[in-house]
Amino acid sequence: MSDTILEPMKLKTLVMDKLTEASVLKEHAEIVADVLVHADLRGVSSHGALRTEHYVKRLNKGGVNPTPKIEIKERGKSAALVDGDNGFGHVIMKEAMDKAIQLTKENGIGMVAVTNSSHCGALSYFAEQAAKKEVVSMVMTQTDSAVVPFGGAEPYFGTNPVAYGFPARKHKPIILDMATSNVALGKILHAKESGESIPDSWGVDSNGQPVTDPKLVKYLLPVGGPKGYGLALTVDVLSGILTGSEFGTSISSMYGDYKNYRRLGHVILTINPGLFISKDDFLKNIDLMIDEIHKVQPAEGHNLVMVPGEPEQIKEEELMKKGVPVTESVYNYLTS
Amino acid sequence: MSDTILEPMKLKTLVMDKLTEASVLKEHAEIVADVLVHADLRGVSSHGALRTEHYVKRLNKGGVNPTPKIEIKERGKSAALVDGDNGFGHVIMKEAMDKAIQLTKENGIGMVAVTNSSHCGALSYFAEQAAKKEVVSMVMTQTDSAVVPFGGAEPYFGTNPVAYGFPARKHKPIILDMATSNVALGKILHAKESGESIPDSWGVDSNGQPVTDPKLVKYLLPVGGPKGYGLALTVDVLSGILTGSEFGTSISSMYGDYKNYRRLGHVILTINPGLFISKDDFLKNIDLMIDEIHKVQPAEGHNLVMVPGEPEQIKEEELMKKGVPVTESVYNYLTS
Repeated sequence: MSDTILEPMKLKTLVMDKLTEASVLKEHAEIVADVLVHADLRGVSSHGALRTEHYVKRLNKGGVNPTPKIEIKERGKSAALVDGDNGFGHVIMKEAMDKAIQLTKENGIGMVAVTNSSHCGALSYFAEQAAKKEVVSMVMTQTDSAVVPFGGAEPYFGTNPVAYGFPARKHKPIILDMATSNVALGKILHAKESGESIPDSWGVDSNGQPVTDPKLVKYLLPVGGPKGYGLALTVDVLSGILTGSEFGTSISSMYGDYKNYRRLGHVILTINPGLFISKDDFLKNIDLMIDEIHKVQPAEGHNLVMVPGEPEQIKEEELMKKGVPVTESVYNYLTS
Repeated sequence: MSDTILEPMKLKTLVMDKLTEASVLKEHAEIVADVLVHADLRGVSSHGALRTEHYVKRLNKGGVNPTPKIEIKERGKSAALVDGDNGFGHVIMKEAMDKAIQLTKENGIGMVAVTNSSHCGALSYFAEQAAKKEVVSMVMTQTDSAVVPFGGAEPYFGTNPVAYGFPARKHKPIILDMATSNVALGKILHAKESGESIPDSWGVDSNGQPVTDPKLVKYLLPVGGPKGYGLALTVDVLSGILTGSEFGTSISSMYGDYKNYRRLGHVILTINPGLFISKDDFLKNIDLMIDEIHKVQPAEGHNLVMVPGEPEQIKEEELMKKGVPVTESVYNYLTS
């Protein structure tokens, strides 16, 4: 099996066509495709075009609304609640971030809660959306239960990721996008296929015991034990309970119950970088922080200390020129 | 050396007396003492009364303003900048949190940036302060450089802690208070004294190489490698750059340069739990989440899966009754 290299625009068009064929509004399909290709370009193919087949399956079974009426309800000067009407999370989040940016431009900060959403793709997309408008952002989403809490043998929270975006001027923005589990399930599946053993901090067996044989992994472990567990709780409270969505083990499964809406919650916080000092000073100091970090003596085995998101930005520049590698099975699906 | 057991009020009075002797305003000394005893009661003695001697040393050399005029500047409907005039961070943060709570009650959310502050003690104190008023909070503070960034051999960020507080109704609030380093330096010093080896994820030697001999540890490692590093950066940007304070290796040292003000930055975000759904539903669902987590099957070696802050709350209840153990050296200092 060899990868096919596609121009980013070509890949985006293939994804869009699959989604519009499945009755998704053209302007929505374009946003979903843009978020997926963004992930592929950054080397995060787990959140890229390979998801298209899954999305179309859920659409066809009725588990996503292809023509949602997204509703925005103001909550005072600095907050809003977005009801996504169970459309694609990518579309709903993009609109929610636009609203947060508007609130921030008007009043310094914006908090937007999202309900009745679905999988929204890589959070880095939305942090980047804010950074392009010179706005600081924090984005969180709940995911379905897969990670054992610290001291537990059964899962409660999901991999509950969080992203932060900090605009710069001379440099690209700093974009941190991380799950609160130690590693993604994909990494464990990869070790399983290649027959390698894994560190005992990645996953547990059905008794909640850490294992080094990837074949025995049943659930994931939080990053740093109680710390990642605490952060996962924070994500679920802010994106789930605060927004009026489900939480914990009541969150609908990504790969199951395809006929019903997932009704996921997300949350966004945005800040005007010029709220307390001048925006110019903020941007100048982010540039300076990046320069200082680049000057830190690297440890053995490293060439350069990078800022969060920088390896993905380097990959993106490379793939924008060279094209995006797409696996045979994904290519076959997209062109079928 | 044996510990002396003191009633919490007695310990608080001893700390207060030491601070007022060093010219601290009585009402400020009372707040600092309350924050320190809060930490001792929760079993976090590293942030407890043992800090008094260090604070008095800094006061006597001119590195803390004993009689600051704390100034609050409004920044629109939902934000404020607090200039701490280089008093005790504990006092400045308590006032900043009061302001954030007020903004939240009026407008749904509050963001308060703090500058010209100093060490503020355990962040859990301020998250609890908000939770008592049924307000959700996030609190962050920068600290001086001690942790190597992912891939680095030299430190850049500090242990940069973050705290979250979520009020409940039936249960005590959920209070997460965590450093973004893997462990505190104190834990490594303890292993050094007892001659034990440590996991290689705790610290690095002077070449940035992970070590298992605590005697060789020069700098700390971030929790979960790139993840803890990314979170530490987030804390420094939000509490440092955003607030107009120093950042990275330019942050003044806790145990050095005693004659000059530290000019630290902190940041607070507060949210009305009833902003998007009813407050009653929020509090009810936090209670339900805690109940559900308590029902998670514990892993071998654990009796109960607890929520963040719960072990410390159990310790606090115990020590409120039994009294607080104070080491001989701390007791001798406080009564000298």
